[in-house]
Amino acid sequence: MNEPLLVLDYGGTKLSAGLVDRRSRGPLDGGGWLALERVKKPVGVDAGYDQTTMVELGRRLLNGRAPAAVGVSFGGPVEFGRGVVRLSHHVAGWENTPLRDQLSRAFDAPTRIDNDANAGALGEHRYGAGRGVDSLLYVTVSTGVGGGWVLGGDVWRGFEGMAGEFGHITIDPEGPSCVCGGRGCVERLASGPSMAAAAAEVLAARPGTGTVLRELARDGALTAVQLAAAAARGDEVALAALAAGARALGIALGSTANLINPQLFVIGGGLIKSGEPFWNVLLTTARAHAMPEVSLDIVKAKLGDDAPLWGAVALAHDALSTEVLTTGVLTTGAVATDGMTTEALTTEQGS
Amino acid sequence: MNEPLLVLDYGGTKLSAGLVDRRSRGPLDGGGWLALERVKKPVGVDAGYDQTTMVELGRRLLNGRAPAAVGVSFGGPVEFGRGVVRLSHHVAGWENTPLRDQLSRAFDAPTRIDNDANAGALGEHRYGAGRGVDSLLYVTVSTGVGGGWVLGGDVWRGFEGMAGEFGHITIDPEGPSCVCGGRGCVERLASGPSMAAAAAEVLAARPGTGTVLRELARDGALTAVQLAAAAARGDEVALAALAAGARALGIALGSTANLINPQLFVIGGGLIKSGEPFWNVLLTTARAHAMPEVSLDIVKAKLGDDAPLWGAVALAHDALSTEVLTTGVLTTGAVATDGMTTEALTTEQGS
Repeated sequence: MNEPLLVLDYGGTKLSAGLVDRRSRGPLDGGGWLALERVKKPVGVDAGYDQTTMVELGRRLLNGRAPAAVGVSFGGPVEFGRGVVRLSHHVAGWENTPLRDQLSRAFDAPTRIDNDANAGALGEHRYGAGRGVDSLLYVTVSTGVGGGWVLGGDVWRGFEGMAGEFGHITIDPEGPSCVCGGRGCVERLASGPSMAAAAAEVLAARPGTGTVLRELARDGALTAVQLAAAAARGDEVALAALAAGARALGIALGSTANLINPQLFVIGGGLIKSGEPFWNVLLTTARAHAMPEVSLDIVKAKLGDDAPLWGAVALAHDALSTEVLTTGVLTTGAVATDGMTTEALTTEQGS
Repeated sequence: MNEPLLVLDYGGTKLSAGLVDRRSRGPLDGGGWLALERVKKPVGVDAGYDQTTMVELGRRLLNGRAPAAVGVSFGGPVEFGRGVVRLSHHVAGWENTPLRDQLSRAFDAPTRIDNDANAGALGEHRYGAGRGVDSLLYVTVSTGVGGGWVLGGDVWRGFEGMAGEFGHITIDPEGPSCVCGGRGCVERLASGPSMAAAAAEVLAARPGTGTVLRELARDGALTAVQLAAAAARGDEVALAALAAGARALGIALGSTANLINPQLFVIGGGLIKSGEPFWNVLLTTARAHAMPEVSLDIVKAKLGDDAPLWGAVALAHDALSTEVLTTGVLTTGAVATDGMTTEALTTEQGS
């Protein structure tokens, strides 16, 4: 029972691997990582690089031990039931890869994989801001806007695993075109790059405005981090751009509360560091668009960038329970035999 | 095993009661009502009228028999777990009424109640257009726009029973004020009265337009039925008003597909009789706002106005299973005794 759980996160810019004690109750209850390593990816890598690097990373952390189970968060759509990656949002060559089975063979352990938004939702539910709630929507706001559901205590993946696309709720049917083919989607209005682009347009169109923001952005393209910094110093263009994004998020949160009535909304991603004005507009708008009789509890995520990794811990636990259920008697027998052997050895040594 | 199920529907303008064989597989499989009666309500009635009339109606249908179980659809929010009506959308005096327990005593049978949107969803799922699917959203478009969820085979009611308010998804944040306090909600754009009001505004503002519609509406306020009739005859104002409503519905359906990815959308209510142009705009818009990789299956309801009553049949079945589970041996014993008695009588008569 002492084998650790191995968890892997295939992100857009980095690969992460962690080892955790299977009895860990998560970072908020003092149960952190036994080991954790992150590798920043060079530009232009493909699936082969990702996979070789990740397996090496896992083996280095394990240092000869066998993992009890492997949990995986992947940055792209995953067929959960078959454990197959449909494609990566970040890297070429991942199309229809049977990642679960590949990793299960590589580490000789039961393995479960899901996309990073579902893994993040699961992480916050089991170990983060959503512990103990029955239902939640986890929303990440960063270079994109994603979401993952826990309903009735389990991840809700939808008919074809496509549930949770909170970023593609339509806010403005006449709004700007979105990569998804729609118009005025949440992501097109509230992602970091979208808000930065909106602010850059204002700076270009209205000379004399946004002096703080202009100063910060002098050396290149405007970023969401610069927006937040300028807003903290009272820059009116930065504040307006962040408020417009926060308003889009708030409208979508209010509509979603009416439609699904989850117990909790957990908001993560880099943009929640955009300051109190951003957060307050988000809360106020959501409340204004939720029906008065619908409860609305919106909190910040507690696991930060590690939410998908902790979700992978939950997935590894689930893989383990399934394994026990599937191989039932055999596993129980093995444990009993092992116990007897240990006892026999102890007795021998003691005699 | 021969006691029928009694089902009751507390609607806005009428009260309905039905009796059904507990082995019925629903109207699409030839299992219709043993008896069905609807009473149109006079204007200005209150909870007392509703309740007296409904119990009398049920007793008349039962004609001395005892029901095996009672299932109830109610036109207003219901606390499902406690079986308590929060209020009626139509009639005064229903606040915090323990309707489930009242009816359980009145008919001496296990009883289960839910709101009409959830009952409609359950009806279409068990007996209608959604038979065999894992997840669906049922949407009714009539004087209001409502919705009910079945997710993973069960009604999803949300944290406080408020899930399914599809009519209060925001479509146009700058749009007209809605009764819910929001702006530009689906219901405010796509309910029958909303579409009729929009058409009436156009008629008032633009003399010479909508000649067919003007003719039909000559004798009073414009209705959605007149809109549909005028649209069928090619009236441009009627067609535009219906298209605007269908577009709002389609945007909300597309967003909901991205957010929850249900297997099926079932659309009911009087407005689905508004003709092919209405339906086609709805389908086309929904497809345009759903992500390309999200499947979208939108069909018309099959049980019409009886969907909530058939949902009540499903609720009665559920009440029965719960009863059996709760009182286990006793119920089984009673059934066996009853069977034996019948057999004994038959034997006596035959001898």
